[in-house]
Amino acid sequence: MMYKIVSIPGDGIGPEVVAGALEVLNAIAKKHDFEVTVEEHLFGGASYDVHGSMLTDETLEACKNCDAVLLGAVGGYKWENLPHEQKPEAALLRIRKELGLFANLRPAKVYDALVASSTLKTEVVQGTDFMVFRELTGGIYFGQPRGYDETRGWNTMVYERYEVERIARLAFEYARKRGNAKVTSIDKANVLEVSQFWRNIVHEVHQDFPEIELVDMYVDNAAMQVVRNPKQFEVIVTSNLFGDILSDISGMITGSLGMLPSASIGSEHALYEPIHGSAPDIAGQNKANPIATIASVAMMFENSFDRPEVAGEIYAAIEDALAAGFRTGDIAAPGEATCSTTEMTAAIVAR
Amino acid sequence: MMYKIVSIPGDGIGPEVVAGALEVLNAIAKKHDFEVTVEEHLFGGASYDVHGSMLTDETLEACKNCDAVLLGAVGGYKWENLPHEQKPEAALLRIRKELGLFANLRPAKVYDALVASSTLKTEVVQGTDFMVFRELTGGIYFGQPRGYDETRGWNTMVYERYEVERIARLAFEYARKRGNAKVTSIDKANVLEVSQFWRNIVHEVHQDFPEIELVDMYVDNAAMQVVRNPKQFEVIVTSNLFGDILSDISGMITGSLGMLPSASIGSEHALYEPIHGSAPDIAGQNKANPIATIASVAMMFENSFDRPEVAGEIYAAIEDALAAGFRTGDIAAPGEATCSTTEMTAAIVAR
Ligand SMILES: CC(C)[C@H](C(=O)O)[C@@H](O)C(=O)O
Ligand SMILES: CC(C)[C@H](C(=O)O)[C@@H](O)C(=O)O
Repeated sequence: MMYKIVSIPGDGIGPEVVAGALEVLNAIAKKHDFEVTVEEHLFGGASYDVHGSMLTDETLEACKNCDAVLLGAVGGYKWENLPHEQKPEAALLRIRKELGLFANLRPAKVYDALVASSTLKTEVVQGTDFMVFRELTGGIYFGQPRGYDETRGWNTMVYERYEVERIARLAFEYARKRGNAKVTSIDKANVLEVSQFWRNIVHEVHQDFPEIELVDMYVDNAAMQVVRNPKQFEVIVTSNLFGDILSDISGMITGSLGMLPSASIGSEHALYEPIHGSAPDIAGQNKANPIATIASVAMMFENSFDRPEVAGEIYAAIEDALAAGFRTGDIAAPGEATCSTTEMTAAIVAR
Repeated sequence: MMYKIVSIPGDGIGPEVVAGALEVLNAIAKKHDFEVTVEEHLFGGASYDVHGSMLTDETLEACKNCDAVLLGAVGGYKWENLPHEQKPEAALLRIRKELGLFANLRPAKVYDALVASSTLKTEVVQGTDFMVFRELTGGIYFGQPRGYDETRGWNTMVYERYEVERIARLAFEYARKRGNAKVTSIDKANVLEVSQFWRNIVHEVHQDFPEIELVDMYVDNAAMQVVRNPKQFEVIVTSNLFGDILSDISGMITGSLGMLPSASIGSEHALYEPIHGSAPDIAGQNKANPIATIASVAMMFENSFDRPEVAGEIYAAIEDALAAGFRTGDIAAPGEATCSTTEMTAAIVAR
């Protein structure tokens, strides 16, 4: 097997964590006799400083011509005051749209070794392990008309049938693979017509998956339920804006934001990245936690290369390193000894 | 002083908790020599069963011709399968709009006596005490165009300048009364133009309150911060949809959803209600917790009658009753003795 990967280290701690993840990738490739080629490209502030643009055509083309993209992080204080269309956020939305990455997968998984770092009580949160499917290229993020003037501001939340169908289908297929896990579809159908439409289509798609339990939940209630009893969820599927909010709360309650990976996938392309930001304050100090990016490589094997057993090896190595007591600063309990980015990487590679 | 109040017990446990709150109201009136008249009206399922409509013109007129409305709860299984426009939700939205109740105030306050019932760790949540100002008659709840057909669904998130101005002003004025509390305005200005507009107007209004600290926060981050460190908030101001989600999480983390009141206020009318629902499963059993409705009466004295010291007496009586160990089923720890709705009411009246 031969995989062609584009790596986009980006800004802040991005280069360090991506370097760590690529080490793990190489180690796994050697072990399993895959051939991996990695092509590095600029994105975000790093690209802006060289080319005056956060996302060049060259980087975009490269992303379209590879098997998977691995992204570190983008943004930082330095580029915060640029006009809106030149900011990192705009580049992120553009790359999602151009690559057709309509589904954002974010696991909310509590590592036993780190359960104490959650602000939720251990008995509430321990054992939490669900996946959020957030629609990523539609809804109010991209709807027209939009704009503002002196007197008013407006955006449009809109979904087309095919947009709801494909994300719903992906979520149900994933649920089936997970032993017919329960799917919770989250909307605001008691107020919004676009949500009623979402709900209708999700139920239509559900007819092809009669063995799977489907629950509808309003977004306000869902946000509470994630905090009240996160273990009730197995698979969540929701729209772009609700998913933005819910996947962040879901990550937060695990107590390990620095540990969580994500996958953004479309029918032709896929991009993997840690959910944490660029953390400019600790950049370049060999302090950052590489686990989320390493776990993103695991998601790459699961989703893009259909090699769940390889992903399983990576997850197991992460758990072993944690069990052996390796802790970067972000996940160390007060007083606990900490290790560096490279030490954590080496510990995981060794396993 | 003479106050004219319309009481709308509504459905489920509504009648019981409103009866409790009116007892407290009468006791306070006697003590302070106010004259209070209470006129009872139908709303929700109770109205539908008699008149075939959740909200009659008669009830609406009564609400417009009084000093304050006290609402119990609406809805229940029985009316869940009505067509959308006949449901309790539609009646709620209509009464908000008709009475011009543009601001929904929801305190997120942790009672020391009940801190253990939060799913958050005690050290994270104890001492939390902030107020959410949710815009209630605009945004995507009411924006046009809206609808759905076979192929797509759409809604419009829109804000006019005056709508943002008046809610922002109310929040800043409240913050000033609270000793120049910090105001956090929550939006999604990195993606939505309507949020950028919201942010601009909030900053314009802020110029009249230079002594107050104003912080902008994105909604996804805010949802996480409420779970990570709720004590950082003092006053939150946000739009209708974001406020729906955030005020529910904020209530949930206190561990006392059954305890929390709300005020919905406009320039001419005001409506007070507990945030909990109609709980049809325990209706009519004298088990419901009347505290949220009693605290709603306290908010009435603060906001509609400008008598914060009377409100203070009610809050103090609630805290005393809790300190003395009175617990309805919803707030009793496992194994703890419980009291009835009427016993809790009597305990509070006695204080
Ligand atoms: C930075 C922002 C545009 C982005 C989003 O809202 O999608 C971020 O919050 C995310 O979740 O990836
Ligand atoms: C029932 C529903 C229409 C309502 C809302 O979304 O406003 C409720 O969730 C609330 O917060 O009062």
